[in-house]
Amino acid sequence: MRRIVILGSTGSIGRQTLDIVRAFPHEFEVVGLAAGNNTALLLEQISEFNPRYVWCNHPPAPLPSGVALLPMNEMAALPEVDQVMVALMGGVGLHPTMCALQAGKQVALSNKEPVVMAGPALKAAERKHNATILPVDSEPSAIWQCLQGEDNHIRRLMITASGGPFRRTPLAELESVTPEQALQHPTWRMGAKITVDSATLMNKAFESTIHSMVEFDDGSVKAQLGPPSMRLPIQYALFYPKRLPNAEIPRLDIGVAWSLDFEPLQPERYPCFGLAITAGQEGGTIPAVLSAADEVAVESFLRGSIGFTDIYRVVEKVLAQHQNQPNPELDAIIDADRWAGKRAGEIAAALAR
Amino acid sequence: MRRIVILGSTGSIGRQTLDIVRAFPHEFEVVGLAAGNNTALLLEQISEFNPRYVWCNHPPAPLPSGVALLPMNEMAALPEVDQVMVALMGGVGLHPTMCALQAGKQVALSNKEPVVMAGPALKAAERKHNATILPVDSEPSAIWQCLQGEDNHIRRLMITASGGPFRRTPLAELESVTPEQALQHPTWRMGAKITVDSATLMNKAFESTIHSMVEFDDGSVKAQLGPPSMRLPIQYALFYPKRLPNAEIPRLDIGVAWSLDFEPLQPERYPCFGLAITAGQEGGTIPAVLSAADEVAVESFLRGSIGFTDIYRVVEKVLAQHQNQPNPELDAIIDADRWAGKRAGEIAAALAR
Repeated sequence: MRRIVILGSTGSIGRQTLDIVRAFPHEFEVVGLAAGNNTALLLEQISEFNPRYVWCNHPPAPLPSGVALLPMNEMAALPEVDQVMVALMGGVGLHPTMCALQAGKQVALSNKEPVVMAGPALKAAERKHNATILPVDSEPSAIWQCLQGEDNHIRRLMITASGGPFRRTPLAELESVTPEQALQHPTWRMGAKITVDSATLMNKAFESTIHSMVEFDDGSVKAQLGPPSMRLPIQYALFYPKRLPNAEIPRLDIGVAWSLDFEPLQPERYPCFGLAITAGQEGGTIPAVLSAADEVAVESFLRGSIGFTDIYRVVEKVLAQHQNQPNPELDAIIDADRWAGKRAGEIAAALAR
Repeated sequence: MRRIVILGSTGSIGRQTLDIVRAFPHEFEVVGLAAGNNTALLLEQISEFNPRYVWCNHPPAPLPSGVALLPMNEMAALPEVDQVMVALMGGVGLHPTMCALQAGKQVALSNKEPVVMAGPALKAAERKHNATILPVDSEPSAIWQCLQGEDNHIRRLMITASGGPFRRTPLAELESVTPEQALQHPTWRMGAKITVDSATLMNKAFESTIHSMVEFDDGSVKAQLGPPSMRLPIQYALFYPKRLPNAEIPRLDIGVAWSLDFEPLQPERYPCFGLAITAGQEGGTIPAVLSAADEVAVESFLRGSIGFTDIYRVVEKVLAQHQNQPNPELDAIIDADRWAGKRAGEIAAALAR
């Protein structure tokens, strides 16, 4: 019996996590659920899964009986909890993730931004408190699966991406694409922010069949394949290292002709990808600045106040103005995050049309 | 230091095994080399690798000094030997493989026919004598690599094949294709028998990039990829579980656009594949009969005495006349092998044009 807390239970990953809980009712006890603004769905989830603790932006009054409000940082650290699924959006997941790790929990992390912002600090907390971070994104999960049983040096990681909705759009037209067009992802149905991040490759969406590949020192390459369903990486993290049959996870259809086509990345089409690689190499507070500036820039694009190619311009300008701090503590990371969000808002406002 | 015997050292796999020995001179001591008719190449190998024991069909007189003749069955069981590479062709590998297993050796097996003929008996000997069978074919090696670190139920094995040189040839023309055409394999350069077996899918040659895939119970699929080079599976078996860098193993080139195209198998184009599947399901002495009849039929086709589609006819007729014996001992398997080879020769002679 896994005693689980799900942070972000009304979002796409949170709902699919509860699908897995529903498919294996004897394997899970839902201790806590945290949501944002979707109070109606949270109430349905409360009545189906009977958590003891909940959190949301606008709690209903009165709460259903037997349920108590508890902030996410405390919910993630409850002594009676084994697993914490962090399925939040953006930098808001950083604090609860750190609290869960400091309490020694097994943390299934679908929320990429905390790792980008504070990867070394999270890894240090994981080691110090004997906690575990398990990846839920399809791409890190693919790499993790490929590494099972391999005590060998990695030569390369090969990360596939669909290229997003604008992979064939003439470069001159990118300036004027609309939020509606940006939300038409070729493969995945996801939240708005991650879909736009897929179009810029700031955050990669994954090729539909080969999720990622690992090349080892002898030249052998292992790939993990599957249909574009997040249920598989979610379930793999929850039951790791076991793999359980689940009829709701679609299967790769090999009874028909199919093709996988690969092309090298075009850097001029995806300048955000270059920013992200450089930020990762430089480290310090730069990745947190990248993450926060991107969050604000994508929001501005989705509201229609800046153009698609302005996302890159905003992030690039904020990065250029930032003074990097190497080996930052969590406080310095959070300061950098706040500064970058504010600065990105000002730059986006100046570009607004 | 691995003390190694290579049976079939002048064939394609044997030569590539010695390429790896040459690339890692401090890792190997070559104790024995066995060849067939290529005495000239064997003499070169003797002077380069200094084995103590050799075997071939027509030994030179006198032998180079310090070298003694020793039959393969004894060479494979020498107490000073750690690893035996069985890179022979056809059923002739069965006895030496069994001798190596009974002596508790680590046996790298590139020779598929012994497994087809006597798989259960070889597995029993492996367990009883604490020996190890390591696969060298690219396809079993791919499956073996995908299974590393997985303690999970397998749902499906997906074995890829190029389809051979006749995958697009109109069915009506298959009757009259020539041995020269059959030897034009689209991907691999191999010996004549295995190339023809690839054209019939009796013995599969492997898709050039994805060598095989394993689907687990949760629907996740792992694939092993690499360029079409046998050096990689040979080296993986010799150094297992280590993966060592070797500049002579080509790498997957992902800096260019590339595609993988998959099509379901067309059973009417590859009737030998159906025979092989049925033989595997029925077990007993039937797989040994299939293997021996195929060996004779392919030889007859390569000599030009029967047509390509006659390969299937010969094997099918021999199988139809065989009385299966379940759970055979090695003697019964060898008897079935001899009977099937003789019967296939008679049937092929009757079909000869």
